[in-house]
Amino acid sequence: MAGAELTNVRSPRVKAARRLTKRAFRDQDRKFLAEGPQAVREALKLDGITLELFTTAEAEARHPELVGTAADQGVPVHRASGEVMAELSQTVTPQGLVAVCRPVHVPLDDALPEAARLVAVLAHVRDPGNAGTVMRAADAAGADAVLFTDASVDPYNGKCVRASAGSLFHVPVAVGAPVAQAVRRLKERGLRVLAADGAGRHTLDDVDLSGPTAWIFGNEAWGLPEEVLGLADDVVRVPIYGQAESLNLATAAAVCLYSSARAQRVP
Amino acid sequence: MAGAELTNVRSPRVKAARRLTKRAFRDQDRKFLAEGPQAVREALKLDGITLELFTTAEAEARHPELVGTAADQGVPVHRASGEVMAELSQTVTPQGLVAVCRPVHVPLDDALPEAARLVAVLAHVRDPGNAGTVMRAADAAGADAVLFTDASVDPYNGKCVRASAGSLFHVPVAVGAPVAQAVRRLKERGLRVLAADGAGRHTLDDVDLSGPTAWIFGNEAWGLPEEVLGLADDVVRVPIYGQAESLNLATAAAVCLYSSARAQRVP
Repeated sequence: MAGAELTNVRSPRVKAARRLTKRAFRDQDRKFLAEGPQAVREALKLDGITLELFTTAEAEARHPELVGTAADQGVPVHRASGEVMAELSQTVTPQGLVAVCRPVHVPLDDALPEAARLVAVLAHVRDPGNAGTVMRAADAAGADAVLFTDASVDPYNGKCVRASAGSLFHVPVAVGAPVAQAVRRLKERGLRVLAADGAGRHTLDDVDLSGPTAWIFGNEAWGLPEEVLGLADDVVRVPIYGQAESLNLATAAAVCLYSSARAQRVP
Repeated sequence: MAGAELTNVRSPRVKAARRLTKRAFRDQDRKFLAEGPQAVREALKLDGITLELFTTAEAEARHPELVGTAADQGVPVHRASGEVMAELSQTVTPQGLVAVCRPVHVPLDDALPEAARLVAVLAHVRDPGNAGTVMRAADAAGADAVLFTDASVDPYNGKCVRASAGSLFHVPVAVGAPVAQAVRRLKERGLRVLAADGAGRHTLDDVDLSGPTAWIFGNEAWGLPEEVLGLADDVVRVPIYGQAESLNLATAAAVCLYSSARAQRVP
């Protein structure tokens, strides 16, 4: 524990972290905030990602191993008052731990391993909670990479980081490529590119998903634009057996990704 | 359009609707609020469910068919000012339509058709957004019923109604039975009862889901308690192929429900 407890919400250190709640400053400073014990734990598992850790006395007492790991790695640990933590937190009930992290994304080519078999592409996804939940589902389904195209939400948005439940630190993520470029690269790597859309010609039950597949997921409200549908090898919908008009984007993505994971594993 | 525009947020009519944002008053008055064009449209498809409709002038201009349908059914339509709508709305950007509705749930025995093949049971689900998303996924997967046990969130919570995207009005819903009673009844009806839990002995890929199945979904943070796991015929987990610790409750539920729907349909 270095130094005295931070109690002034206007101190330069607190303000420098606080501004990372805004995308423009995240982009400018090339840093983001990871909040809560789960995100901090996963960030600390990666070398050189965690730059600073803010913790309340209560959180340090609850998670001494996290604060210890940070200190062992030479990460500056700042004890913060409840008021300062409330300033840094983006949740209703702050859990007392906020890490300042270096971005974890990599160039598109580095995100895609040679033998990639399952990739999730977020094109035009705007809701950060949905984007984070898709990352978590992609990780769980064993995806090799998650690509955020240039029209999608910032993966470092606080809600997205939280909803990913640590998966942002597990799965290789690429950010900002135009969707056409991402699709071209995926096809070059031998993946079949499927656009998930309620207007798809085929349903999940009709397509053979046993080969390497990349799924493109679109906007919550209006799905995928024509030009993106046109880039895909096929447009596939989750079958609706009841009266629902559609599925929530993140649940539809989970169903698609798990259908692929299963088809690739279960004979 | 009956009467003048409501502009006073303290008028008895507005206050009577506004109090339905609180569970105690929903229970006492036996009414709830359905917000937005999609929920209102689905409510109006059911006879005698919609008791009143509040609409702004803008929303009426955008959705004349909804306001017309309500008026044709003899539902009192109240034109409301933006300020009144903001008072009734539980969203950041109100869409200008709020219906006061009668509860749609039915007794447990009525919710379960004789030949029920797929049922979702929400036991200890606390997050209303998750509960609504599970209802929507259950509807999409063709479930015959959704059961909210006594320890689960109120299905008429505004966030739950919104997240269900109309499915609350599609699928037979029963509310408030103790989980043991619900499980007994499901077994009597010939359904195999599976508890979805990360600690399950079997994975989704190992179990035969082609027969009539009821899925029990638990709490977001700690899964299902031992006594509920003990009631089930089997405890099943969604396989985790990557590094994620777990899935979001609603996405896990969607994957389970769709695995059943598929196994029941695809030979």
